[in-house]
Amino acid sequence: MDYSKITVIGLGLIGGSLAWALKRAGNVGEVYGVDIDDGAIDYAIREHIIDVGSKDLRDAVNNSDVVVIATYVGIIPKIAKSLASILSPKTTVTDVGSVKAKVVMEIENLLPKDVSFVGGHPISGTERSGIFHASSELFKGKKCILTPTVNTDDQSLSRVRKLWECIGAKVYTMNPEAHDRVFAYVSHLPHTVAYALLNSIAPEGWTPDILDFAGGGLKDFTRIGESSPEMWSDIFMANRENVLAAIEDFKNEIEKIRVTIEKGNLARLRDILSNAASFKKDFI
Amino acid sequence: MDYSKITVIGLGLIGGSLAWALKRAGNVGEVYGVDIDDGAIDYAIREHIIDVGSKDLRDAVNNSDVVVIATYVGIIPKIAKSLASILSPKTTVTDVGSVKAKVVMEIENLLPKDVSFVGGHPISGTERSGIFHASSELFKGKKCILTPTVNTDDQSLSRVRKLWECIGAKVYTMNPEAHDRVFAYVSHLPHTVAYALLNSIAPEGWTPDILDFAGGGLKDFTRIGESSPEMWSDIFMANRENVLAAIEDFKNEIEKIRVTIEKGNLARLRDILSNAASFKKDFI
Repeated sequence: MDYSKITVIGLGLIGGSLAWALKRAGNVGEVYGVDIDDGAIDYAIREHIIDVGSKDLRDAVNNSDVVVIATYVGIIPKIAKSLASILSPKTTVTDVGSVKAKVVMEIENLLPKDVSFVGGHPISGTERSGIFHASSELFKGKKCILTPTVNTDDQSLSRVRKLWECIGAKVYTMNPEAHDRVFAYVSHLPHTVAYALLNSIAPEGWTPDILDFAGGGLKDFTRIGESSPEMWSDIFMANRENVLAAIEDFKNEIEKIRVTIEKGNLARLRDILSNAASFKKDFI
Repeated sequence: MDYSKITVIGLGLIGGSLAWALKRAGNVGEVYGVDIDDGAIDYAIREHIIDVGSKDLRDAVNNSDVVVIATYVGIIPKIAKSLASILSPKTTVTDVGSVKAKVVMEIENLLPKDVSFVGGHPISGTERSGIFHASSELFKGKKCILTPTVNTDDQSLSRVRKLWECIGAKVYTMNPEAHDRVFAYVSHLPHTVAYALLNSIAPEGWTPDILDFAGGGLKDFTRIGESSPEMWSDIFMANRENVLAAIEDFKNEIEKIRVTIEKGNLARLRDILSNAASFKKDFI
């Protein structure tokens, strides 16, 4: 056994899938799951996703090797605060939040000195949410970013790294600030844009026609638009400065296209679109 | 034989696939293909996509029942102008362009009185282009919009309708102006937004990181961004007024999200995102 006990707090899509994958990996003594929702705990026990379910945080984290906070980003610091006084010494705490810098700093300040925190972000979300969509294979072949800081001890980092590797994820490390800038562009900006796009169509009253003819390009955006508004509003707020900067950059680019169309400058428009297309070629 | 001769001008993805599907449908005497590119004609003959290939427009359209203009939107009126003096009486002309109002009006003014034009738009493009990606199945089960006007004669409309139906497409009719407004929102706006999104990332110098972590949401946009810049700049220009109006609507929506994030108003942000998510639910 590499781990005698691991506790997952928050049995949603990510937390549920992680608990399940760890249980199946066979190198964890007991997997504990915590959730405020009885239905999620019952389901997790019935489907053998966890060994023990609990609503009592103290019991659930007692003597755990690793405690994984798998809630929405907005309440991670609150959970960490509740954990501060009840964690056993030498426990490693990690999370799965999509935003790191602010969260990592807050948690490092909250936790006692004998507990180490390692920020984590598995790149494996889908537009779905909830434990009913959990899969023990969710992280297989997927990337997981860990964001150690000067305060992270090496043993905790390798403990968390191993945890993800043993369920098939490829682990990368980045500093929390770099992580948040990159994800503002590759993930948070596309989501704000998709939400804005759907909203710019919905109030137009075009819905009946659009229902019929969405094959024309809209469909690519709607998977993102279906994502949880609660989760994404938390993420945008937690990564506020970077998301605002990314939106500004984007607004400049859409305005560049708008002005060029308005002026009827076809050659310039082709150049602008070609730049995007060449980026795409590099990208694959 | 429902048609003794059909001519397709422009052997790209759409023109090539259409010629091929018509040839396979078995109710067309001869399918002629016209292209300025010898390679496209050679390939089309070799692969039995067309019966006869030609660079001579006059020969190719002589005695055709239906002439299909399958070039980029920007040069459709130019082609129609070349056709005006060489079409046989009773020929029906149609096109496959993604923008209709301006093109339909221009062509109706260009063509002689004994030739009828029916605007068409099959909703079946992909990010690919060129005859090498053509498929005789491309239109099977797909929608095709025809945009008759007060000048369209019924016989020509049913000729073109039948042409699409015999290769498996579902035909809808709309007036050209309504078509262009709908597609400004469901297709042209998503494309401008995808191009702007890729451009807002490319110059940031984030590319290496982004290459690794695009799973976070960007990927959904890149299929669109890979589309032909030449084709799309033509489309945006041909549907200029509607595209500009759609971009304005979109800019208001992204600004609404930006300001709400800036103000830190989480409850309001959730409402804005929920509106988009509810639209998505109706939409499927």
